[in-house]
Amino acid sequence: MYRTKTCGELRLANAGERVTLAGWVQRTRKMGGMTFVDLRDRYGITQLVFNEERDAALCEQANRLGREYVVQVTGVVGERSNKNAKMETGDIEILAETLTVLNVSATPPFTIEDNTDGGDDLRMKYRYLDLRRTAVRGNLELRHKMAFEVRRYLDGQGFLEVETPVLVNSTPEGARDFVVPSRMNPGQFYALPQSPQTLKQLLMVSGFDRYFQIVKCFRDEDLRADRQPEFTQVDCEMSFVEQEDILQMFEGMIRHLFKTILGLELAPLPRMTWADAMKYYGSDKPDTRFGMRFVELMDVLKGYGFSVFDSAAYIGGICAKGAATYTRKQIDQLTEYVKRPQIGAKGMVYARVEADGTVKSSVDKFYTQEVLQQLKAAFAAEPGDLILILSGDDAMKTRKQLNELRLYVGEQLGLRPRDKFSCLWVIDFPMYEWSDEEQRLMAMHHPFTSPKPEDIPLLDTDPAAVRANAYDMVINGVEVGGGSIRIHDAQLQQKIFEILGFTPEQAQTKFGFLMNAFKFGAPPHGGLAYGLDRLVSLFAGLDSIRDCIAFPKNNQGRDVMLGAPGALDPIQFDELQIKVDLKKG
Amino acid sequence: MYRTKTCGELRLANAGERVTLAGWVQRTRKMGGMTFVDLRDRYGITQLVFNEERDAALCEQANRLGREYVVQVTGVVGERSNKNAKMETGDIEILAETLTVLNVSATPPFTIEDNTDGGDDLRMKYRYLDLRRTAVRGNLELRHKMAFEVRRYLDGQGFLEVETPVLVNSTPEGARDFVVPSRMNPGQFYALPQSPQTLKQLLMVSGFDRYFQIVKCFRDEDLRADRQPEFTQVDCEMSFVEQEDILQMFEGMIRHLFKTILGLELAPLPRMTWADAMKYYGSDKPDTRFGMRFVELMDVLKGYGFSVFDSAAYIGGICAKGAATYTRKQIDQLTEYVKRPQIGAKGMVYARVEADGTVKSSVDKFYTQEVLQQLKAAFAAEPGDLILILSGDDAMKTRKQLNELRLYVGEQLGLRPRDKFSCLWVIDFPMYEWSDEEQRLMAMHHPFTSPKPEDIPLLDTDPAAVRANAYDMVINGVEVGGGSIRIHDAQLQQKIFEILGFTPEQAQTKFGFLMNAFKFGAPPHGGLAYGLDRLVSLFAGLDSIRDCIAFPKNNQGRDVMLGAPGALDPIQFDELQIKVDLKKG
Repeated sequence: MYRTKTCGELRLANAGERVTLAGWVQRTRKMGGMTFVDLRDRYGITQLVFNEERDAALCEQANRLGREYVVQVTGVVGERSNKNAKMETGDIEILAETLTVLNVSATPPFTIEDNTDGGDDLRMKYRYLDLRRTAVRGNLELRHKMAFEVRRYLDGQGFLEVETPVLVNSTPEGARDFVVPSRMNPGQFYALPQSPQTLKQLLMVSGFDRYFQIVKCFRDEDLRADRQPEFTQVDCEMSFVEQEDILQMFEGMIRHLFKTILGLELAPLPRMTWADAMKYYGSDKPDTRFGMRFVELMDVLKGYGFSVFDSAAYIGGICAKGAATYTRKQIDQLTEYVKRPQIGAKGMVYARVEADGTVKSSVDKFYTQEVLQQLKAAFAAEPGDLILILSGDDAMKTRKQLNELRLYVGEQLGLRPRDKFSCLWVIDFPMYEWSDEEQRLMAMHHPFTSPKPEDIPLLDTDPAAVRANAYDMVINGVEVGGGSIRIHDAQLQQKIFEILGFTPEQAQTKFGFLMNAFKFGAPPHGGLAYGLDRLVSLFAGLDSIRDCIAFPKNNQGRDVMLGAPGALDPIQFDELQIKVDLKKG
Repeated sequence: MYRTKTCGELRLANAGERVTLAGWVQRTRKMGGMTFVDLRDRYGITQLVFNEERDAALCEQANRLGREYVVQVTGVVGERSNKNAKMETGDIEILAETLTVLNVSATPPFTIEDNTDGGDDLRMKYRYLDLRRTAVRGNLELRHKMAFEVRRYLDGQGFLEVETPVLVNSTPEGARDFVVPSRMNPGQFYALPQSPQTLKQLLMVSGFDRYFQIVKCFRDEDLRADRQPEFTQVDCEMSFVEQEDILQMFEGMIRHLFKTILGLELAPLPRMTWADAMKYYGSDKPDTRFGMRFVELMDVLKGYGFSVFDSAAYIGGICAKGAATYTRKQIDQLTEYVKRPQIGAKGMVYARVEADGTVKSSVDKFYTQEVLQQLKAAFAAEPGDLILILSGDDAMKTRKQLNELRLYVGEQLGLRPRDKFSCLWVIDFPMYEWSDEEQRLMAMHHPFTSPKPEDIPLLDTDPAAVRANAYDMVINGVEVGGGSIRIHDAQLQQKIFEILGFTPEQAQTKFGFLMNAFKFGAPPHGGLAYGLDRLVSLFAGLDSIRDCIAFPKNNQGRDVMLGAPGALDPIQFDELQIKVDLKKG
């Protein structure tokens, strides 16, 4: 060992001990005949002192240390005269006796500080230096702890972690696969798993009873801030369970995480139906850190000659408490926000509740104060509140626009603090959603999801109305996990495939191995999967999942540090019997 | 929940309780007016009893159950009249009151028993049924426990599990990579990692201090029984350590595993130099469950006119205690064994120590009894022992042949029981080995391995003699893990690359990103990696790693259950801008 102690553990109680530390030079300061060096390792920072009077040569050696040099120091722990209450080691310093430079360092391209001067691109290229920053490394320490606590909880509940293969077959009905040419089977390709969905269902057929895996999954999709081509799931499945059992089990897991990681006792998770989530929040992942629930206004505002509302299929609004102080400019900016093409509203109506209780709106010429008072009553609005209203000819689309407005205003009003957590289950998802693109019903979750038993008769008469035994866990407006009870009955599965538009032959081609397995005694089963990257970034209070991933890829799917992807050797093409076939243009 | 209890937990103390169980029908027996059903789940087997007198309809229903039907049963726990001491639930049975068939099953293609009638191919095709067998599932339960205990130990030692990416760049100096075409970067490819070696070294540069990961790795090599295209490593790295620190840390880990998993207190691990391992066992992974160490016989047997020995560069033998009873036929069979092309010995000489102490050898005409007594003394052989001798013109090759003979005879004599464990460290590996194929020195471990400080002067004069700070952990003749102290000094690394025959430009191209990282203050570091598949198979007493992997691939790299690899859709080729380019022939 190059050290007897770390840079994070010495306290006043250690005063007088001779210790050896090793770490990186955070900074050096020369003050009179003294040189101070902050020595950093994963565990903290400790101040070293070199005294010119005592040992001029050693002090001179310390003066020559550059930032990020790796050094080993032996010395005696002493009490600081000038204590630093912000540092855990701030009561002590090391009176250095020997100094060994273990390695020099070139000047880093950015400062190794919590608030670095390095831009994103530079930090990605030198990710190994970026990871030296306490803030970034802290996220990965958190990730380790969370993964460990997930395992501890699930192991305690009798779950077995089973590794499923990475080189698999293409996923039917999924996103785009990454593929891997097989040298031993020329012309054939493996796919990387988008999730171990079918394999975990096979493990249930095998009687594994309770399975989990913290596992890398892969989707070749165009990337955004919260998407990576490879991401990590906490993937779980249970046999002989109903939906309630799964909700209880994984509510227990998230409570365990909040308690062990953040020291928070979580209240029992509320449950909201998908229909209510859409009705009151315009989103299947409502941010419930704040209220501002939608109020439908068709009965209140229709029929007074305002053609925008009179022709609308949906009129709804939110009430921003105390936001009547918004200036005209601020309100215009909200209007601009909802009119952006990404959101697509045609306009926004507002109404202020004045100090005297009267309501002043942007459409006063169509509405009497009496109607406006009804509006106020619909929201139980009070003086000082601001009512914001959207309308449109498609109720669902308008609700989604109103959701964006709600989140935006909530952010402006400081109602979405990162250290407050609001968790819930969204349940009773529809089985199907209509795809304009494919002109057919698509499985909302996946084709193995079980309908609610009481809705099974509707499969024949009104499949779009059938609700699934599917559920999502939502925290602060982020879907952190989701799953369903699966179909274990071959006849019901056949019917579901029919509704999805598959012939028996197509179903056999796409899902044959799973359907064959189900012939041999599939137990009732269900499960869910959490996105670990998202869960960690929520706990860490991060906007993006990138900083809780050690070596993330950029929006072009590149690792600029490794230089991946890259060119292949001609011999590799030859062995794999493939070639590049670039499109013109 | 479909059950109140599992099939493994009921005991006599539960007698009188009304319980609900769910599971698979292992078998049914009709005896007089009673039908007995063995119900199986992951946790055990419980006997159900249906009484025709009490409920004829229910009993009839039970009589119609087929093997592997999934059923739910409610009944009262009763004491068995005919107890089965072999089963943990053998004292009780369930007097069934209701029976629900949750799912039917087709007749499985093989029996779901520890000793199944299914052949390997059939079992692989129906792996989900094979996994129902208690023996196979037990291996995966063991694997879960071992991985969990590895994590518990390393977490307790301050290691952080950090996930490194799966989509990376090609590994320089490694085996063949699996590659993944990048849709977003046409004509470019990711590689799947052969190990996270360079990434874990970058994490040390980042100051992570103690890293581990249980991680899938990939090698596109031709397959054997103990190789899979994807395999799992316990990958570890530490900073500010010397070799001794790593040996202590991971000796601690293996002791933890033996204790928590097998209940065995492991003796401190002996250490053997690579040179001694080759000298005494002809292998860098000696099976030390038994002795039979090599004795060199050049001084004893050379120069008596037996031209085979007189011209040999190496003569050595082993002494099989008590094996003088081997018949001529058995000895001929040993000779045939070492003469097989895979081993390649030219012949074998034997010598028996008779009851009267005289020695009788197959080359008596060349040697006097006096010389043969010296031979006996060299082995400290006793009456009843059998001495087996090989020779050759290449000492290393002959030792390897003698190693094969030693293992074979050890197996025949029952000296290699699977429930006995002998662990050791093999240390002081050479830095380099000569490659006849490449006509250059190759890194024995990898090019980042540090030489022993005292051997550094030899780099200039006799590089082939330089020993590395490299070490393997060997259990029962299996290399379960290995690693090294890495080079953290840029100049030394440069010199090592030169000896390996790289120009500075080539080194930069191949290892540039790591060498660049090392410019910014790399700490002294080192680590090792265990093969989890091998470790589990050793603990499970398996010959092959396959049965401790849930969904293994066959020797053609195929998953016959999933049908992977398979053909791609034309649209996938189009998106990826590649095409298949099959060789003629």
